[in-house]
Amino acid sequence: MNVPTSGKRVALLRQGLDLVTVHGFAGVSLGMLAEHTGRSKSGLFAHFGSKEDLQLGLLDQTSREFEAAVLEGALREAPGLPRLERAARLWLGWPARAGLTGGCPVAAGLFELDDQPGPLRDRLLNTEREWRALLATWTREAVTLGQLRPDLDPEQFVWELCGLYLAHHVSRRFVQDEAADERAERALSALLARSRPAG
Amino acid sequence: MNVPTSGKRVALLRQGLDLVTVHGFAGVSLGMLAEHTGRSKSGLFAHFGSKEDLQLGLLDQTSREFEAAVLEGALREAPGLPRLERAARLWLGWPARAGLTGGCPVAAGLFELDDQPGPLRDRLLNTEREWRALLATWTREAVTLGQLRPDLDPEQFVWELCGLYLAHHVSRRFVQDEAADERAERALSALLARSRPAG
Repeated sequence: MNVPTSGKRVALLRQGLDLVTVHGFAGVSLGMLAEHTGRSKSGLFAHFGSKEDLQLGLLDQTSREFEAAVLEGALREAPGLPRLERAARLWLGWPARAGLTGGCPVAAGLFELDDQPGPLRDRLLNTEREWRALLATWTREAVTLGQLRPDLDPEQFVWELCGLYLAHHVSRRFVQDEAADERAERALSALLARSRPAG
Repeated sequence: MNVPTSGKRVALLRQGLDLVTVHGFAGVSLGMLAEHTGRSKSGLFAHFGSKEDLQLGLLDQTSREFEAAVLEGALREAPGLPRLERAARLWLGWPARAGLTGGCPVAAGLFELDDQPGPLRDRLLNTEREWRALLATWTREAVTLGQLRPDLDPEQFVWELCGLYLAHHVSRRFVQDEAADERAERALSALLARSRPAG
């Protein structure tokens, strides 16, 4: 996730990210970004060599926003369950808190790009794997600290947490169910409760 | 879901649906369908007046395929828990069993269209609501029959089942995790187990 980048390029990516949250990665072109930012398409070529370069930059920008909105807050908590719980709660609905117009670019990309081989899919897969691995590490720490059951399968826990995140995304953004946050909180509390040591 | 339609139109939609599973609804145009089916674009205009008309037809075709691959099998089971369990298991990975190349068009549409107002989003929302309502009805029947807990919240049960479906879709199609089916089965069995009456 450590991509060297100029200030102007980041400013353009920040504006472009809003387009991704609405139109998906495939829906954002250099022409669309030019119109959205009031710049010439040729001017944008100084920052992005191709649509693919732009898309990869937008995914890196997503990671930067995610780090600021979710990771930093989680890392301020004590290791183990406090960190894991904070991460889960900051993850739910993070794009809105990051000031983005639409939904989570990563979640959308998981469905948009599943049958689209190429560098963008590869980088998104890497991003998704890193996040799942980090959640699994924090889950394992909570097990080691005796805060979660010793026989808990951390990968299964994270798998179910990912489902909860996606269900919340759909019910809040697509179905626009007013109970979306409450349902996610109930599901998360129940997942944590049944993962705690007996007694 | 009862859309009158000609045999040739359905045959074209069947071929077009494969494109949707790979490229999403926005990614399928009349030009792309013409190329895919070896027909002229003008010939396709006899069946689809516009890209939007094509997209709506493709969503209706998704519903027809879903009915054949999931609903019909579920309805052959006894009402209550057997029907609900069968529906959940037929739902998981249904596009592959229906012979489609890519992922579930509905699942992808839930993320692709969340910020795209219009008739396609409206119809997809209706499709999604009908399916969730049907699952909730079957869940309530299982409660009435004493097969699931009397204090179970059917909407919360369905909400968590939807998360499980989405998590499975991502892990099987995007992450291509070989354990995807096993993880989904474990999550589904656990969801059913904790929803059964105590004792």
